[in-house]
Amino acid sequence: GSYRIAVLPGDGIGNEVTRGAIEILKTIETRFGHQFAFEFGLIGGAAIDQKGTPLPDETLAICRESDAVLLGAVGGPKWDRNPAHLRPEKGLLQIRKEMNLFANLRPVKFYDSLTDSSPLKKEVIQGVDLLIVRELTGGLYFGKPSGRIVENGEEKAVDTLLYKKEEIQRIVKTAFELARKRKKKVTSVDKANVLESSRMWREITEEIAQDFPDVTLEHMLVDNAAMQLIRSPQQFDVIVTENMFGDILSDEASMLTGSLGMLPSASLSASGPSLYEPVHGSAPDIAGQNKANPIAAILSAAMMLRLSFGLAKEADAVEKAVQQVLAAGLRTADIAQKGHRAVSTEEMVNEIKAV
Amino acid sequence: GSYRIAVLPGDGIGNEVTRGAIEILKTIETRFGHQFAFEFGLIGGAAIDQKGTPLPDETLAICRESDAVLLGAVGGPKWDRNPAHLRPEKGLLQIRKEMNLFANLRPVKFYDSLTDSSPLKKEVIQGVDLLIVRELTGGLYFGKPSGRIVENGEEKAVDTLLYKKEEIQRIVKTAFELARKRKKKVTSVDKANVLESSRMWREITEEIAQDFPDVTLEHMLVDNAAMQLIRSPQQFDVIVTENMFGDILSDEASMLTGSLGMLPSASLSASGPSLYEPVHGSAPDIAGQNKANPIAAILSAAMMLRLSFGLAKEADAVEKAVQQVLAAGLRTADIAQKGHRAVSTEEMVNEIKAV
Ligand SMILES: CC(C)[C@H](C(=O)O)[C@@H](O)C(=O)O
Ligand SMILES: CC(C)[C@H](C(=O)O)[C@@H](O)C(=O)O
Repeated sequence: GSYRIAVLPGDGIGNEVTRGAIEILKTIETRFGHQFAFEFGLIGGAAIDQKGTPLPDETLAICRESDAVLLGAVGGPKWDRNPAHLRPEKGLLQIRKEMNLFANLRPVKFYDSLTDSSPLKKEVIQGVDLLIVRELTGGLYFGKPSGRIVENGEEKAVDTLLYKKEEIQRIVKTAFELARKRKKKVTSVDKANVLESSRMWREITEEIAQDFPDVTLEHMLVDNAAMQLIRSPQQFDVIVTENMFGDILSDEASMLTGSLGMLPSASLSASGPSLYEPVHGSAPDIAGQNKANPIAAILSAAMMLRLSFGLAKEADAVEKAVQQVLAAGLRTADIAQKGHRAVSTEEMVNEIKAV
Repeated sequence: GSYRIAVLPGDGIGNEVTRGAIEILKTIETRFGHQFAFEFGLIGGAAIDQKGTPLPDETLAICRESDAVLLGAVGGPKWDRNPAHLRPEKGLLQIRKEMNLFANLRPVKFYDSLTDSSPLKKEVIQGVDLLIVRELTGGLYFGKPSGRIVENGEEKAVDTLLYKKEEIQRIVKTAFELARKRKKKVTSVDKANVLESSRMWREITEEIAQDFPDVTLEHMLVDNAAMQLIRSPQQFDVIVTENMFGDILSDEASMLTGSLGMLPSASLSASGPSLYEPVHGSAPDIAGQNKANPIAAILSAAMMLRLSFGLAKEADAVEKAVQQVLAAGLRTADIAQKGHRAVSTEEMVNEIKAV
């Protein structure tokens, strides 16, 4: 088939890792006889520097005309002191909202060869294979009012955790559909003992569960989930939760297996092209040094092949190539054992291509 | 001196662990020549069963007339399906608000003898000695509006994250004062790249920091904090954060050292007596079996001696007794190594008394 891919490298190592992912996609293109057209757009700090805004209209237009978006990473100390509307992250929040990217999927998988890199004991993380499904366009991130007020001479700040019924329905439904293709268990995380929005979340989740009798549903309070993720992460299959809880828990989960540099993510759209990006950030400290681990970006491209283009065989091929290269002992600096040589970004990409 | 202590055992193992703590307090009373008067009150499920409300007025009256409150734990499956206002946790939320318990202090400390119980590797947790200072009477827990709305035929649920300037000032000030007596570092956790309330939090924290030139202030985003707590918890001294973030991070942190059954907490009041309680819950599965670890409740009593009564020597004595008993190898079931005999709640209490 023929597919248009919008590429937004962003900042820092976003550049080198998307370059790596593109090389892998080109290999797939040739090997499987597809046509991928890459169109580049600016986002984040790079866009602020060149266009004066973190998400230029041209970028949004390129994305909207694409079949899927590949994003690198945004941010860096250069823009940290900017006012809110001129910060790289603002571009990320805007693209989520503009493109209706309501479902953020973050798989976390145990790699036997990486147990040294994990802060957790091997017996705790062995066999971990979980998927966090985070609601991405609602809740505290976008609710109004959000601002400062002065009332009776008292200064206050307010943010609003708002969810519409349909927003909860679609994310929970997505989680159940994904669980059906996995270990058939959904853990819905909320704070129903305190929040009204969580009580509605729980009710709707119970309703949706009726349509998935083959999937087990369990509710877990967010504070307990933060504990259980460390204590016995093997118990989880699919975790579904609202935006802010998902932000916190998915970053926590990304630490479990010591493979942050290898974790991909997908942000599915309710209405158009979806977006794929590595979980890691822009890592300004190693940017441009040919040191970054390209695997997260490459696995994000594999998710794109599978979820946006329906190219399962091709996605499998990429994932297997990554596995093989790891099994052969190749490591970038972030996952290298003490005393072992780390390969460069380019070497890693070339080896994966060569499989 | 002479002190009135309100005791609210609550539910489940709350009963046996507060009983243990009282025994230790009585030993201190005799040994150091103080007078402790204990007054008992109902809270949580026990209060619902006997008085039809999770926080009866009598209980609140007893607490208000006391010099400090010792709480066990609340909750259990029996009340899980109750409507919100008849749930045990509601009693906890109410007592926090009514008694102005604005600062929840949760120390997490590495115990060399417990490294087997931790899911984290020894080198990661070695030397951990951190204190979470959680704001406890504001934010999403108490902000209005909080409820369901129907707008243009759409069903919505809303909660409100609201902070007054003074609420942030007093909790941050408390954190700095505590850091001054420790390793002189404050990590303020927020989500300033997304939330207005966090941006105000950050500003106020910068202001307060001016008055503490001897203390280092660092800001950390909540998602990053959730990662750093697992990746390198040794970096932290005092962590200060708002109510919901604090709920999540403190439970996460309680898993680090494998000592959940030993973690105490204090909830300081802005206007009256403070409250002390173990971090663990009511553990209905082992309630009444003389198996629960009383150390968290005992160390909570030690915090009471130190923080509410200014009895530092006495608090030290309790803490040292606990250390000694652990060093001697005594373990309740929750912290016992495989193959080692676990002692009962009573045995543990007796041994600590005997030191
Ligand atoms: C950069 C920030 C706004 C963003 C978020 O909070 O969603 C990031 O942490 C993420 O998880 O993608
Ligand atoms: C029981 C619940 C309402 C409470 C909270 O969320 O504050 C608990 O989790 C805690 O941390 O004390």
